[in-house]
Amino acid sequence: MSGNVIGERFLLLIFGESHGKVVGAVLDGCPAGLGLNEDDIQSELDLRKPGQSIVTTQRMEEDRVEIMSGVFNGHTTGAPIMMLIRNTDKDSRSYEAMVNSPRPGHADLVAKMKYGGFNDYRGGGRFSGRTTASFVMGGAVAKKLLRETLGVEVIAYSLEIGGVRAEGFDIDTARKNRYMNEARAPTAEVAEQMKRKIIETRGKGNSLGGIVECVALNVPLGLGEPIFGSLDSDLARIALSIPAVKGVEFGSGFASTRLTGTENNDEYYYDGDEIRTRTNNTGGILGGLSNGMPIVYRVAFKPASSIASKQTTVDLATRKEIELIVPGRHDPTVVPRAVPVVENATALVLADHAVRAGIIPPILGKRQ
Amino acid sequence: MSGNVIGERFLLLIFGESHGKVVGAVLDGCPAGLGLNEDDIQSELDLRKPGQSIVTTQRMEEDRVEIMSGVFNGHTTGAPIMMLIRNTDKDSRSYEAMVNSPRPGHADLVAKMKYGGFNDYRGGGRFSGRTTASFVMGGAVAKKLLRETLGVEVIAYSLEIGGVRAEGFDIDTARKNRYMNEARAPTAEVAEQMKRKIIETRGKGNSLGGIVECVALNVPLGLGEPIFGSLDSDLARIALSIPAVKGVEFGSGFASTRLTGTENNDEYYYDGDEIRTRTNNTGGILGGLSNGMPIVYRVAFKPASSIASKQTTVDLATRKEIELIVPGRHDPTVVPRAVPVVENATALVLADHAVRAGIIPPILGKRQ
Amino acid sequence: MSGNVIGERFLLLIFGESHGKVVGAVLDGCPAGLGLNEDDIQSELDLRKPGQSIVTTQRMEEDRVEIMSGVFNGHTTGAPIMMLIRNTDKDSRSYEAMVNSPRPGHADLVAKMKYGGFNDYRGGGRFSGRTTASFVMGGAVAKKLLRETLGVEVIAYSLEIGGVRAEGFDIDTARKNRYMNEARAPTAEVAEQMKRKIIETRGKGNSLGGIVECVALNVPLGLGEPIFGSLDSDLARIALSIPAVKGVEFGSGFASTRLTGTENNDEYYYDGDEIRTRTNNTGGILGGLSNGMPIVYRVAFKPASSIASKQTTVDLATRKEIELIVPGRHDPTVVPRAVPVVENATALVLADHAVRAGIIPPILGKRQ
Amino acid sequence: MSGNVIGERFLLLIFGESHGKVVGAVLDGCPAGLGLNEDDIQSELDLRKPGQSIVTTQRMEEDRVEIMSGVFNGHTTGAPIMMLIRNTDKDSRSYEAMVNSPRPGHADLVAKMKYGGFNDYRGGGRFSGRTTASFVMGGAVAKKLLRETLGVEVIAYSLEIGGVRAEGFDIDTARKNRYMNEARAPTAEVAEQMKRKIIETRGKGNSLGGIVECVALNVPLGLGEPIFGSLDSDLARIALSIPAVKGVEFGSGFASTRLTGTENNDEYYYDGDEIRTRTNNTGGILGGLSNGMPIVYRVAFKPASSIASKQTTVDLATRKEIELIVPGRHDPTVVPRAVPVVENATALVLADHAVRAGIIPPILGKRQ
Repeated sequence: MSGNVIGERFLLLIFGESHGKVVGAVLDGCPAGLGLNEDDIQSELDLRKPGQSIVTTQRMEEDRVEIMSGVFNGHTTGAPIMMLIRNTDKDSRSYEAMVNSPRPGHADLVAKMKYGGFNDYRGGGRFSGRTTASFVMGGAVAKKLLRETLGVEVIAYSLEIGGVRAEGFDIDTARKNRYMNEARAPTAEVAEQMKRKIIETRGKGNSLGGIVECVALNVPLGLGEPIFGSLDSDLARIALSIPAVKGVEFGSGFASTRLTGTENNDEYYYDGDEIRTRTNNTGGILGGLSNGMPIVYRVAFKPASSIASKQTTVDLATRKEIELIVPGRHDPTVVPRAVPVVENATALVLADHAVRAGIIPPILGKRQ
Repeated sequence: MSGNVIGERFLLLIFGESHGKVVGAVLDGCPAGLGLNEDDIQSELDLRKPGQSIVTTQRMEEDRVEIMSGVFNGHTTGAPIMMLIRNTDKDSRSYEAMVNSPRPGHADLVAKMKYGGFNDYRGGGRFSGRTTASFVMGGAVAKKLLRETLGVEVIAYSLEIGGVRAEGFDIDTARKNRYMNEARAPTAEVAEQMKRKIIETRGKGNSLGGIVECVALNVPLGLGEPIFGSLDSDLARIALSIPAVKGVEFGSGFASTRLTGTENNDEYYYDGDEIRTRTNNTGGILGGLSNGMPIVYRVAFKPASSIASKQTTVDLATRKEIELIVPGRHDPTVVPRAVPVVENATALVLADHAVRAGIIPPILGKRQ
Repeated sequence: MSGNVIGERFLLLIFGESHGKVVGAVLDGCPAGLGLNEDDIQSELDLRKPGQSIVTTQRMEEDRVEIMSGVFNGHTTGAPIMMLIRNTDKDSRSYEAMVNSPRPGHADLVAKMKYGGFNDYRGGGRFSGRTTASFVMGGAVAKKLLRETLGVEVIAYSLEIGGVRAEGFDIDTARKNRYMNEARAPTAEVAEQMKRKIIETRGKGNSLGGIVECVALNVPLGLGEPIFGSLDSDLARIALSIPAVKGVEFGSGFASTRLTGTENNDEYYYDGDEIRTRTNNTGGILGGLSNGMPIVYRVAFKPASSIASKQTTVDLATRKEIELIVPGRHDPTVVPRAVPVVENATALVLADHAVRAGIIPPILGKRQ
Repeated sequence: MSGNVIGERFLLLIFGESHGKVVGAVLDGCPAGLGLNEDDIQSELDLRKPGQSIVTTQRMEEDRVEIMSGVFNGHTTGAPIMMLIRNTDKDSRSYEAMVNSPRPGHADLVAKMKYGGFNDYRGGGRFSGRTTASFVMGGAVAKKLLRETLGVEVIAYSLEIGGVRAEGFDIDTARKNRYMNEARAPTAEVAEQMKRKIIETRGKGNSLGGIVECVALNVPLGLGEPIFGSLDSDLARIALSIPAVKGVEFGSGFASTRLTGTENNDEYYYDGDEIRTRTNNTGGILGGLSNGMPIVYRVAFKPASSIASKQTTVDLATRKEIELIVPGRHDPTVVPRAVPVVENATALVLADHAVRAGIIPPILGKRQ
């Protein structure tokens, strides 16, 4: 396999560059018989669009998805589903100027060296955050498949941006609010604080990081393949594939390193006929397998690398240090736009494991 | 592929159960011509052995590795290398008693349900920490290969145990000290503090978690395959495959979420002919590719699940809640023993990517 | 992986249906720095077009390929190359009529049952010979890569059609002639005989099979991975992926089963400094590895399934036997059109193995 | 993946050398709950043992299989099953003498060059026919799994040896007779003729090739993944992985190339409620999918390469041509011993596809 492929039985291959003709994905292994049309995917893609006030849009693309294969009479056929969006609003001139001035915090320099200078550097090319649109295309299908077959629901939100952290909310609140505010926060109140922080930071030509928390409900027990294909391994792998991610933790995560066994172990009890745990420090994954409790994990995003402040870099032509102000307008934080990406990435992993385990069958119903 | 396989070109398949006949591994794709004998592997396995005072050994196995194939005349041949250790000191009686009483924090219950009760439950079976010996077998070959071909060095240590955190040391200190003390700490001083904390906690029938930090030096620029096969994705994946791991972070990691772009971006400069960064907040991986700086990441381990204190669980036969004291003697923390596991896991990923990239060729030298 | 993916490091994922919007392919793992434009691919696709006199065209598509990603400034970038052609001349009406009348020799019935009736049945959908255009798209890149880096040349031709067999020609003759005649025969004489046979058979509403022979020159010694990834295994696998193929043989092949060891073994000799074999009964592959001699193999195509004669089939609605005359105009043999498909499929396998072996490096040259 | 791995969900990794310590296999992905012990595997391995009169045994190994992991309380657990046999009767001295004299028809020379001389050359090392014992170990599990869950039966036999071809028998005859005679022929009469031919040829220091035919009964409709993962692609791939195989054909195979469409198409009819075909020229696979009819294919074996006659080869030390008589006693044909190998290889592919398709579930029953 290769770096552009994820999943084993519900497999996604992604392609495209930021300023090329298209970004897209081929999803192979989707069961036949899932009702699917472009609106199912567009609605997820639209959530990834930048907001109006807190995030300064670099580009205003339509991002209209087209399904090019694998769907017939409104249903998936079992054949590969190719999806793409065309890149329309792209202005590559500033990148031509920067080709010898690698931006700090970006892949410009390593990409140039790894590919002998043949890489498409415009807009970050293959390393652009725009490639996450491909995650969403595949994830939108995964989400619908999980919802319709298993009732699985995946809910992510901005837990923290620039140190402003949401506290004391429940998952129902998060479900209802996260896409009602531009910060993708679980409550309107924290959204307002995050927004102020973002606007203030943007005003200084600087940027912020933050944490996306993701919860998956109704995941059946037993998903995951020990050891290297454990569910947390695969979620961590895809999370770290998202540009700007620097960490991931499950359940009590890094905080658990300061707890004792008696504090951190989740004790079992019978809830009617079902065995549940009183706490969920393990985050719904035990021994690499889903244990029937909500899956809970958090993804750390560094502050956005493109900033309007002066930074030192090198000039590859003159071999001297220079000062660089990255031109254009920048997202002061990627966290809000990453929320649907994390949701869809999570759905991709869960769908693959559910298909592998035979919990989702290869045909959904039968066509007359 | 499957849950027991990792790597693409330098591929490891692991097998075995805690109380079965063996634990072992098959390494496929190792270049031909690497000098290799059992001592190369044994020396790494020995580092994983429990210490004498701070960790109460559950079992005192010899853990003598045998190479069964793929090595001829003292060199690897290019054929699969099968390695194993025999399980000798195993007492499964206590597990028979517990078969209906799943231990909190262990995979007992999910394993039983996923495999219809056919799983080998003795000693945790396939979910035992003992399977990490297989990581080490493969990793020992990877380490030697990386060292001899690229000069890569991988150094892990206990950064923190039970809240006792090592501060203010450098990598040379850590290299020298980590295997000179039972806590696998980077300095003798913090080792002593960790040891006291461990002994104290064990005395209370409780357990501790902690953080292993891992540094890889001399990694060539450009390892990693964007996007899903990025170097951090693959390191995160294997780290989360180690039992008891609940999180992973690279460079400034979760702390970066509270920094600004100007604080977190690593600026470039020329160090003679080489381009380096003044800081290494990115932890040596940018855009999923190694950037030539030291790779730095941290792995969070939860407190050990097996504790001598009373816990509530369910009895699967009577369908009632019961109280359980896990019998036997327990490791009060897995962190020290995990240090060589993290090192070897890291080497596995780096070797696979170096082989994929053609940086390590398929034949090392030529035999007369 | 999945049924639509082939290759490990030079990986092709194909998609599309006969009467859908597109057929296409994503090629991942092509080294950066290969000069590539649409003409490189179009010229191979054009060879797959039906001829004018001997094969009755069912459709007259332009089949203009578009490269949508992975190429920048005229060179491959190392990122996935997505290519497609749009389906323009498609008339699906006759297929609507046949939806309950599976055509003998076609996948209509098994496809319907495997996919619960959700498959796109128009024009055979995913099972159409049209999907071989995707083989050619990927193969065209492979061919150019092999030619420019290793001087490898792949030459296929119609060895036999409807029992008319080419004899007594050499590879130079075949190279020169095969695309100069519609039968894709190695000599003009046998082309004429094949053509007469085809026209005569078509006149009777019947069809013919035949054999494509493929020769690869200048393949370096040592390609192939024993045992399951042997070069002949992978060539056989892709050959059998081509619709209508029912057999494959290497070197002396099935005829070798009637030879003795002394007759069939290829003896070694020194040709200057190079070791060669006097005969090539093994077809250039020994122990699954290329041995430096020309690779020679043959692919058996059954007679085309769509014929204008009356056949018995079943009516799935009435559950009765019926008589069927497949409507439309039909290729009386697929062999001539399969010649470039076999060439390109061969190139795909060789390129993947050359990349795996590091014989073709991940970057070709360096861009200023 | 690598050359030593086959299968996707029911995955076999094989290891070992002819004169090393062991040959063996790890089977990963076998459903939990299959009753399995060493006799199940031993009985298949015993069929691969050489006979007494027609084939001169080179070595008389016990070939006792040991299951080392993945089985508990007489059932598979869902964990990897490691199996091995120890190499006991090995005499490597003659190979030391031949290290610079590559045997014609063997992989000696290509292996030496591919692996820089580091390969284990003793007894052919990794390229020995002895590695097919590993196919049988995995295949024995596959066979039992297929039989117990789906009633699938796989029957192979020597269709032809040295030009002596079995004609006019049915599958029941073949099932009953094939392992009752040393030639593994479908009838006692043809077995006797084959035996005479073999003994006569051996007397001349020469060897014979032949054809193994394999029939799989009760294979459910729809196994196979179009296009590259088609059932015939995967069967061809594994068949060509068996040493000495030079061709494979399905159903009417190469003979179909001289038939017309009306002769070769299999017409449908209702057999009660089931749709069947009147003929089975397609060999049970249509469009790459099993169609519910018996799967029928043939595998061509070249004459055994090791012969007692004088042959010309090169001396790599002196760089001169020399004459070689391969020392030791030789199998005059590999065909009889290949019969169980083909059966078990076929079972491996069918089991993998049945598991992929979810037709065989991940747990067989439930343990009290």
